[in-house]
Amino acid sequence: MPSDFILDFDRVRRLGFPEVVLAAGKDTAQIVAIVRQLARENDVLVTRLTRDAWDELSREAMPGHADYDERSRTLVVRVGKSNRFVPGDVAIVTAGTADVDVAEEARRTLEYLGVTSRVIADVGVAGVVRLLGKLDEIERADIVIAVAGMEGALFSVIGGLVGKPILCVPTSRGYGANFEGLASLLSALSSCANGVVAVNIDSGYGAAMAAYRILSKGPKTWQKPRESAGSASRPRSTSTARRPASTGARRKRS
Amino acid sequence: MPSDFILDFDRVRRLGFPEVVLAAGKDTAQIVAIVRQLARENDVLVTRLTRDAWDELSREAMPGHADYDERSRTLVVRVGKSNRFVPGDVAIVTAGTADVDVAEEARRTLEYLGVTSRVIADVGVAGVVRLLGKLDEIERADIVIAVAGMEGALFSVIGGLVGKPILCVPTSRGYGANFEGLASLLSALSSCANGVVAVNIDSGYGAAMAAYRILSKGPKTWQKPRESAGSASRPRSTSTARRPASTGARRKRS
Amino acid sequence: MPSDFILDFDRVRRLGFPEVVLAAGKDTAQIVAIVRQLARENDVLVTRLTRDAWDELSREAMPGHADYDERSRTLVVRVGKSNRFVPGDVAIVTAGTADVDVAEEARRTLEYLGVTSRVIADVGVAGVVRLLGKLDEIERADIVIAVAGMEGALFSVIGGLVGKPILCVPTSRGYGANFEGLASLLSALSSCANGVVAVNIDSGYGAAMAAYRILSKGPKTWQKPRESAGSASRPRSTSTARRPASTGARRKRS
Amino acid sequence: MPSDFILDFDRVRRLGFPEVVLAAGKDTAQIVAIVRQLARENDVLVTRLTRDAWDELSREAMPGHADYDERSRTLVVRVGKSNRFVPGDVAIVTAGTADVDVAEEARRTLEYLGVTSRVIADVGVAGVVRLLGKLDEIERADIVIAVAGMEGALFSVIGGLVGKPILCVPTSRGYGANFEGLASLLSALSSCANGVVAVNIDSGYGAAMAAYRILSKGPKTWQKPRESAGSASRPRSTSTARRPASTGARRKRS
Amino acid sequence: MPSDFILDFDRVRRLGFPEVVLAAGKDTAQIVAIVRQLARENDVLVTRLTRDAWDELSREAMPGHADYDERSRTLVVRVGKSNRFVPGDVAIVTAGTADVDVAEEARRTLEYLGVTSRVIADVGVAGVVRLLGKLDEIERADIVIAVAGMEGALFSVIGGLVGKPILCVPTSRGYGANFEGLASLLSALSSCANGVVAVNIDSGYGAAMAAYRILSKGPKTWQKPRESAGSASRPRSTSTARRPASTGARRKRS
Amino acid sequence: MPSDFILDFDRVRRLGFPEVVLAAGKDTAQIVAIVRQLARENDVLVTRLTRDAWDELSREAMPGHADYDERSRTLVVRVGKSNRFVPGDVAIVTAGTADVDVAEEARRTLEYLGVTSRVIADVGVAGVVRLLGKLDEIERADIVIAVAGMEGALFSVIGGLVGKPILCVPTSRGYGANFEGLASLLSALSSCANGVVAVNIDSGYGAAMAAYRILSKGPKTWQKPRESAGSASRPRSTSTARRPASTGARRKRS
Amino acid sequence: MPSDFILDFDRVRRLGFPEVVLAAGKDTAQIVAIVRQLARENDVLVTRLTRDAWDELSREAMPGHADYDERSRTLVVRVGKSNRFVPGDVAIVTAGTADVDVAEEARRTLEYLGVTSRVIADVGVAGVVRLLGKLDEIERADIVIAVAGMEGALFSVIGGLVGKPILCVPTSRGYGANFEGLASLLSALSSCANGVVAVNIDSGYGAAMAAYRILSKGPKTWQKPRESAGSASRPRSTSTARRPASTGARRKRS
Amino acid sequence: MPSDFILDFDRVRRLGFPEVVLAAGKDTAQIVAIVRQLARENDVLVTRLTRDAWDELSREAMPGHADYDERSRTLVVRVGKSNRFVPGDVAIVTAGTADVDVAEEARRTLEYLGVTSRVIADVGVAGVVRLLGKLDEIERADIVIAVAGMEGALFSVIGGLVGKPILCVPTSRGYGANFEGLASLLSALSSCANGVVAVNIDSGYGAAMAAYRILSKGPKTWQKPRESAGSASRPRSTSTARRPASTGARRKRS
Repeated sequence: MPSDFILDFDRVRRLGFPEVVLAAGKDTAQIVAIVRQLARENDVLVTRLTRDAWDELSREAMPGHADYDERSRTLVVRVGKSNRFVPGDVAIVTAGTADVDVAEEARRTLEYLGVTSRVIADVGVAGVVRLLGKLDEIERADIVIAVAGMEGALFSVIGGLVGKPILCVPTSRGYGANFEGLASLLSALSSCANGVVAVNIDSGYGAAMAAYRILSKGPKTWQKPRESAGSASRPRSTSTARRPASTGARRKRS
Repeated sequence: MPSDFILDFDRVRRLGFPEVVLAAGKDTAQIVAIVRQLARENDVLVTRLTRDAWDELSREAMPGHADYDERSRTLVVRVGKSNRFVPGDVAIVTAGTADVDVAEEARRTLEYLGVTSRVIADVGVAGVVRLLGKLDEIERADIVIAVAGMEGALFSVIGGLVGKPILCVPTSRGYGANFEGLASLLSALSSCANGVVAVNIDSGYGAAMAAYRILSKGPKTWQKPRESAGSASRPRSTSTARRPASTGARRKRS
Repeated sequence: MPSDFILDFDRVRRLGFPEVVLAAGKDTAQIVAIVRQLARENDVLVTRLTRDAWDELSREAMPGHADYDERSRTLVVRVGKSNRFVPGDVAIVTAGTADVDVAEEARRTLEYLGVTSRVIADVGVAGVVRLLGKLDEIERADIVIAVAGMEGALFSVIGGLVGKPILCVPTSRGYGANFEGLASLLSALSSCANGVVAVNIDSGYGAAMAAYRILSKGPKTWQKPRESAGSASRPRSTSTARRPASTGARRKRS
Repeated sequence: MPSDFILDFDRVRRLGFPEVVLAAGKDTAQIVAIVRQLARENDVLVTRLTRDAWDELSREAMPGHADYDERSRTLVVRVGKSNRFVPGDVAIVTAGTADVDVAEEARRTLEYLGVTSRVIADVGVAGVVRLLGKLDEIERADIVIAVAGMEGALFSVIGGLVGKPILCVPTSRGYGANFEGLASLLSALSSCANGVVAVNIDSGYGAAMAAYRILSKGPKTWQKPRESAGSASRPRSTSTARRPASTGARRKRS
Repeated sequence: MPSDFILDFDRVRRLGFPEVVLAAGKDTAQIVAIVRQLARENDVLVTRLTRDAWDELSREAMPGHADYDERSRTLVVRVGKSNRFVPGDVAIVTAGTADVDVAEEARRTLEYLGVTSRVIADVGVAGVVRLLGKLDEIERADIVIAVAGMEGALFSVIGGLVGKPILCVPTSRGYGANFEGLASLLSALSSCANGVVAVNIDSGYGAAMAAYRILSKGPKTWQKPRESAGSASRPRSTSTARRPASTGARRKRS
Repeated sequence: MPSDFILDFDRVRRLGFPEVVLAAGKDTAQIVAIVRQLARENDVLVTRLTRDAWDELSREAMPGHADYDERSRTLVVRVGKSNRFVPGDVAIVTAGTADVDVAEEARRTLEYLGVTSRVIADVGVAGVVRLLGKLDEIERADIVIAVAGMEGALFSVIGGLVGKPILCVPTSRGYGANFEGLASLLSALSSCANGVVAVNIDSGYGAAMAAYRILSKGPKTWQKPRESAGSASRPRSTSTARRPASTGARRKRS
Repeated sequence: MPSDFILDFDRVRRLGFPEVVLAAGKDTAQIVAIVRQLARENDVLVTRLTRDAWDELSREAMPGHADYDERSRTLVVRVGKSNRFVPGDVAIVTAGTADVDVAEEARRTLEYLGVTSRVIADVGVAGVVRLLGKLDEIERADIVIAVAGMEGALFSVIGGLVGKPILCVPTSRGYGANFEGLASLLSALSSCANGVVAVNIDSGYGAAMAAYRILSKGPKTWQKPRESAGSASRPRSTSTARRPASTGARRKRS
Repeated sequence: MPSDFILDFDRVRRLGFPEVVLAAGKDTAQIVAIVRQLARENDVLVTRLTRDAWDELSREAMPGHADYDERSRTLVVRVGKSNRFVPGDVAIVTAGTADVDVAEEARRTLEYLGVTSRVIADVGVAGVVRLLGKLDEIERADIVIAVAGMEGALFSVIGGLVGKPILCVPTSRGYGANFEGLASLLSALSSCANGVVAVNIDSGYGAAMAAYRILSKGPKTWQKPRESAGSASRPRSTSTARRPASTGARRKRS
């Protein structure tokens, strides 16, 4: 039976990272088929996978070990072919509690890519002292991912305090004149702080990928199958885990 | 000859401040005629009066003493009927040098209304330490007018540090994704800081009037003719005067 | 167990009011945990809490006495540490019956903050005589919060009749060319009335906080624990209560 | 020499009014040629004709008597074939002095069409008492054209006070959040007053045409050539003339 | 028990039509209370009343005879105090089948107001010949209400063919670049046809009210109680009734 | 019983294709009635018919053989009066798996119109090599329909590589700054590739119709009833069928 | 001296047409250098070249014969290497006189490409009879380019009357709610007529290129140098020439 | 004389780069004063300085050696205190000739910061082969700055081919549906390529600063005064110099 889709297995060689599955807009059958094919070459990351979609999906036989996280709506399917450890680490800073979902999407993506990260939540500028108190910790990171909704003032404040690369993720948190993330997006782009950059609204994934591009220094870091669990070189990833992730049972590959 | 316009002389009694002339959209003849009529009752403030319009206007005989300021594009025509001194003072804080024109419009309007104010320029959040260094001075004011273009992050940072009323004036300074002040306007409205309020883009005038509403506690403060120059009770107004204001000669009333 | 969030207990000292919990975007567990921590220092206000979220939330043990109001979607958790009575009072004026939810959010927030207020509903300009009939009552207040959807003409009419501070809350009431509150928001910002100011669309909360900043004259008004019920100095708050608020039982602090 | 354009001489029979020339986007040669052709059948109205374009145009030989008015940017070329007198009259109400240009475009168009009108200027809602003082005069008209920029609150206030047809002309007067007339346009469309209608931003012409459609009750009112000057049945049109209109000399038809 | 709302009983005297109840944003209790009060003076019209809201509402005792129509989402409560017959008639022309709901809102409103109307459906310009075939019928009406979604080309075509007043109702029918009615709204406002006017998106009600303002020639047409059913002078209203309207039983007034 | 709608049976003669039924905004009864009438003259295509609407619809007696496809939301009712085979073929190229629904709407419409087409999925520019690998196949087609969401870069890349007509269908796939298809729409319109054209967002139907206009060379190709199944001249249509289409049983014509 | 730019000489082979020079954003030196290089292979077309830019440019030595047209802002540099005659012809239909500039850009581009065309001006729908009178002429063309500003109703009317490919060019003609061409652009995209397509606002060039893609049936039609003037097979192009084009003298190649 | 502005001399220590002067919105006197103060500590960069502003400015005595470049609108004032050489290099890739001004702003900023860069112009996707031919050169860089207007397809194509950090600069080049850079901005943000990031429209400066943040790895690279000219470690910067930069004479420091 011929496939509907053309997978881009060359991407690892060309870009240094494999194709990732954006679940939004795809049905269960499509996702399963794509995951299976990709898993022949690498561990697989699926993003924007809702709880309901996962409930339906997890009934299907899937290769390897499936690790679903509801908060970040990400699924990682591990088949023992993970990315090499990438030196350097990322501070993911959020303005408010409600931005944490987006931050977690970034953290989970970085973890999948072999990059160490840590989430520093709730340092929005409504109380800029909270941010100042965390400044040392933030400055020690190689890259800062700043996640903020509402008016996105966090981007400029951090950009004026820290000289490292600042990747801004505007979120759609807020209402009225936030216009679904437009206010925070325009803030990131119009920032008076020099050289801060923006990704799409709510795209923790995009910021993680941008961080990977910086830290990996380009292609040729994705590796041969090896055992991923417990490895000393696996990225350290300080999460803010509140509830256990849904973890499907390990299954045989068909 | 009957007049084209109906002036609102009742406004002082009703609102506590007289009608102000918005020069934009009016021609020289109209402005002169309106100023003359209003000057029978009060000193007169004209806003949004460009240098070119003033050059044309100043050739006409005008009542009293005309004090034009190019930077703020305001004209005050003094006929000895100024507003009473209003207790309280206003800190006008600007993010960048280029916001100073708007700040000056606020300061000149407050001065005309009998309110003390001071401009604290260049404390944008790209270097939040500059703002922190001025915090004591800002906190001492009764009201803060915050003037900022680009992404308007200043609004939230000040709103999170100072408990006084914060009146935000988004400016059209910036380019691209600032979209003529839209970015800073949305920031003011979506601010994560509690209870900051916004006026129209570039409206230093609007913020000054809002400050006056707060400090004057409503109508009945505008007064009988009295000599304004040198009066001990005149508002103190710490400007950032760079060049001498264009000051028309004192003229007889026709 | 370490917390996900950094609370800003310093806010009372710095700004004069405590941190308020915006329920939107937070899950039940997060809200409960934050409320418990904040309740150690002050009574707690939760906003944008839907009926469904409250039904789930109210099953959890909460400190003190929980007073939920569906119409305004606010929850007040009283632990005997309420704000001091703040002198002055606020008139909350609405254009239409459907704007009352937003007005109630303002009224409940003011009540929590110790500020007296009264809702004057249904005085939209489609029949400007209704507004004129209420003018004396409105003028007696120290501050006017004007709540209006559709085209927001109320803002300018009140701003031209009353000399007190006018805080405009554009609402998303209306359809088509109202564009989710954009029409009324632009009206507030472009108002021909002098010195009216705007908060975010539907933000009764924001207007109440702005009123508090004006009346409280800055920090240092939040007080030691004392008994709130029946106190003579508690704010008078004339509501438009239509249905009894959901009131959770008083519970022991854990 | 063949013509570039197809004129719609049938329009009078079909719609009851002749084709009008929109000068914007046409060059001098085009305008002259079109005017000459139309003048064979009717007096001709040209709109959106700037002072500079008129200066260039008036050097060309034109049929009949040319009456240019700079404020409304309209030109009427009279060749003795004017429209019949149309019973009924129109009140053109403006919010501010700067809206008068648009009001004059409406008044001049109505005059050309044989409709009586009067401009009632400067009754914006910043002082709603001015409007109330003019209410009797407004109510006596058969149709009200309301012209307002900024937030356009005038539309709703008049619509709530007067039961006649209300034709709203939003103007681009204002700045910032007026967004070139968008604020006043949305106000007209979202008005809480029942049954007010809108034409395009700054289109005094459009409102006049709509009034003509109502008063003329459809086609068959445009008439045979007759002498227009001094006619007893010519519409009365109370202008706010400030400066004499530019009136080209009468010229022979080529 | 005091009421939440201030009803505008003076509206009939002032404007010639009574207050109409916009159900959107009001709950059942509010609607019932308002209807009961208004019904003391006039028959009552309720608009934007969804099927679900009506199902809940119809269980309440209501005065008079309730006539609900799902397609137009309108309810008419008849208590024998209907509007006088208004001479003249209205053609309601729709571009597509899906615009008929909006057309029916106009028709039902006109019927309530005592105005004769007829719906001419499905004459969109994708087949302009259909429109031309109906032209005679349309031209005979005193007023044309044109209802169109998508690109709204109908407005200009009718405006160029018919000399009567043209009231355009842009609808939100369409998708993508229609942007919820924006495309058809801008078409109505930018129309190359002279003097066509627009009401809000989807507002059949607004267009009907505008037509009433034209045909009624202002206030003083609403009348004393009289029997409405079977009256010879009742407006003729040619509907496109497909399914019987939900008609609540006649109930005693409480 | 008179009909609510005026069908445009003349369309085949005038344009070369029959009226198609847009299900959105119509209820079941309307759709059935229209389909029955149209089926007297031609096979019938219904678009934007959701699964739920089809489930309700399929219970009604319908003429001929009903072939419903959920993915493209299209229904074809075959009564033996199909379009003539149209020479030429169309390549439908999609950027991502999630764009396939829109592509299938195009393919099904073309099939109904007698045009051969083939879907080439998943050749988005994130891996431009995939596109280059399919270039020969794409170039062999007479027309290219390019379907892309997100940033729509595919339009320009194909437009720069292939000299055939390029019909762009921007899709609403994506989130945040895609703004419901606005980003991809603006990309199609602003493309640096010469002479690519755009249809509405998500309108696979519109692109198919545009392709038909090109290949059919205008009217006079729709034919007399003849047996459609198994015909040698029927268009070849290479689908990407994943699941069997819902196919209603053949029914007698009433 | 190395060049700043990389020319795409392969474009003729790949796409069937050579690179065209967009003058906007380039300075005189750049344009001259590019034209010289391109002229080695083909006649050259320059678009968006203002009168002022041409005045400066024409002083430079240029290859071949330069033919500048102010109305369309196009320059054709003929070096005897013109495109082959392409069979088929295009009707360029405009709504108003002011759209003719855009129509002429299309006509001149088609002429350069070897395609026959004719401009049919001034058939806007404000008088749909004018359009109907020209219908036979329009239907005889192989492709229709429809050029319209304001509300763009022309697109749908023509699309409903003519079965040939309809390429819509929305223009920025109009004011206010036209929003610089947005209204007409949305009309083209939301058209109720089936299968009409749109190019960018004011892009007569884009429509011409799209027509060329259709008529040329892809690459391999651009030819060897041959004498272009007076050739029997040169496209017939019925212009609306009002003033002689600026024609630079023939110059030697440097 | 007290200064109007507060300079941020601490920025080098905190962020690793000094304050840069944005000329837009500042007058000559302000710019000169700021430059003089900043020049006490570092070489100074001024951006967005128009030719006219420079002509006025260059008459003033300035410290050190002033190097103005019209194309990029940048001024560098060298006082022998340049930034340390920063290892790594940047490829600045532009889609069209008209994007080169923005690219040059990036290049000049990088040069000032001590970073090696090279401009690779005219590799837009209208001829993707041009880009493929330059791919090796692009891939060798450590960072890619992609500059593109119109639809910005270049961002996604490069992002899909190159694994290094991709900094996108959307430009306002284009017209109509480009909406002053909005189309290319949305393309950068919605890109299907993983991890590309965006700066503000036309902000070559912003992209350069972002590149510096990545290559410099944070603060502590700005150095003590030393002679900058001819230094072996100065960045290599391959420009596309077309005309000699305006270079003011060396002046004494006052």
